[in-house]
Amino acid sequence: MEIRPIAYIRTDLPSKFGVPRQSGLVEELEATIVFEPQFRTDDALRGIEEYSHLWLIWEFSQNKEGAWSPTVRPPRLGGNTRLGVFATRSPFRPNSLGLSCVKLNGIIKTADKGSVLSVSGADLADMTPIYDIKPYLALSDRIDGAFGGISERDTGLLNVVINEDAAGLFDEKKLAALRRVLELDPRPAYHNDPERIYGFPFAGFEIKFKVAGDTLTVIRAEKT
Amino acid sequence: MEIRPIAYIRTDLPSKFGVPRQSGLVEELEATIVFEPQFRTDDALRGIEEYSHLWLIWEFSQNKEGAWSPTVRPPRLGGNTRLGVFATRSPFRPNSLGLSCVKLNGIIKTADKGSVLSVSGADLADMTPIYDIKPYLALSDRIDGAFGGISERDTGLLNVVINEDAAGLFDEKKLAALRRVLELDPRPAYHNDPERIYGFPFAGFEIKFKVAGDTLTVIRAEKT
Repeated sequence: MEIRPIAYIRTDLPSKFGVPRQSGLVEELEATIVFEPQFRTDDALRGIEEYSHLWLIWEFSQNKEGAWSPTVRPPRLGGNTRLGVFATRSPFRPNSLGLSCVKLNGIIKTADKGSVLSVSGADLADMTPIYDIKPYLALSDRIDGAFGGISERDTGLLNVVINEDAAGLFDEKKLAALRRVLELDPRPAYHNDPERIYGFPFAGFEIKFKVAGDTLTVIRAEKT
Repeated sequence: MEIRPIAYIRTDLPSKFGVPRQSGLVEELEATIVFEPQFRTDDALRGIEEYSHLWLIWEFSQNKEGAWSPTVRPPRLGGNTRLGVFATRSPFRPNSLGLSCVKLNGIIKTADKGSVLSVSGADLADMTPIYDIKPYLALSDRIDGAFGGISERDTGLLNVVINEDAAGLFDEKKLAALRRVLELDPRPAYHNDPERIYGFPFAGFEIKFKVAGDTLTVIRAEKT
């Protein structure tokens, strides 16, 4: 089956480094969904603002390594436990489809890109292709008794220290989003070197940080 | 992007006639998910039984009419209101992808098809191709405050009368599923002719019924 992108998401996280591991973890992260020209019609969005949340079906476009593996080692399990790929939300799947629930803030009318959707809580890197957008239906999608899974045994948050120089580069909303991204520990799994300086791009800046124990300290933010 | 089926679902509803409009509406409907030979490995399922529910991403394979339309007329709104396709779960989308949450009953080991998944509550016709299976993560997928949508203004259930001859053809579980499918009114939208006899295939039988007012009466069930 051939599918084609209907839209691309624009977020503050151009690389997968820093992208939250699941949707909804960083509600402060705002993003816009820009439709491809052939799908850019207000008609296709009629009534969508009645919904509080949307599903996005998208492509793990930054994981094009090709072959899938029947088992994966989820970072949240410490990297030593193998689970079946269909028992995880790992990107390394037979079909590279991601599924995320985002909060719909509203429709923004733009001069050059038509109506775009403003959403919060996405776990997608900038310019990720989107293949479908569906309303979240509480009746069928909110499963009150659902259980299972590693995400509920999640590790704690990091303490985050951002100096005034770095903090002053961002408005209040973006700073809150950055802080939350850092609290969730954006280091690659299994890294634990207090001297190592990590970096990742966020909202036009390269964020440089170290982690010692449970504290993450932003060293500086450099314009990219 | 090219995607390929990883599995097909086997259900008691070979045509889309009778298939519930959303997942979870008929919890009594049991189905099995049979993996394609190249994805038929127990490794890929390791740990999946820890989860109570799964997401299926599948193809609206019985709606191959081709062109998508920016607006659709949802049957539940009486057929007179046009909504944007992205504000609905309509099958007539730019990419024919469906999204359903099903309850995982367990893994069944078979002699000829390897390990298959037993699930409940699917809204998929028999032999629908499945492209991805993901665990339902309560943390990110159960949105407590979510609102919006027509499914919450759903119409009431029909009273269903099944005579003993017809009822005797099914075991208790299948009869409960059939009754629930009929309560949800499987007629095409906007039909209201008390004399008309409708029919649809279910579990090896053609179910013939009439609807007068709020009562649906099964006339007979014929072996197909």
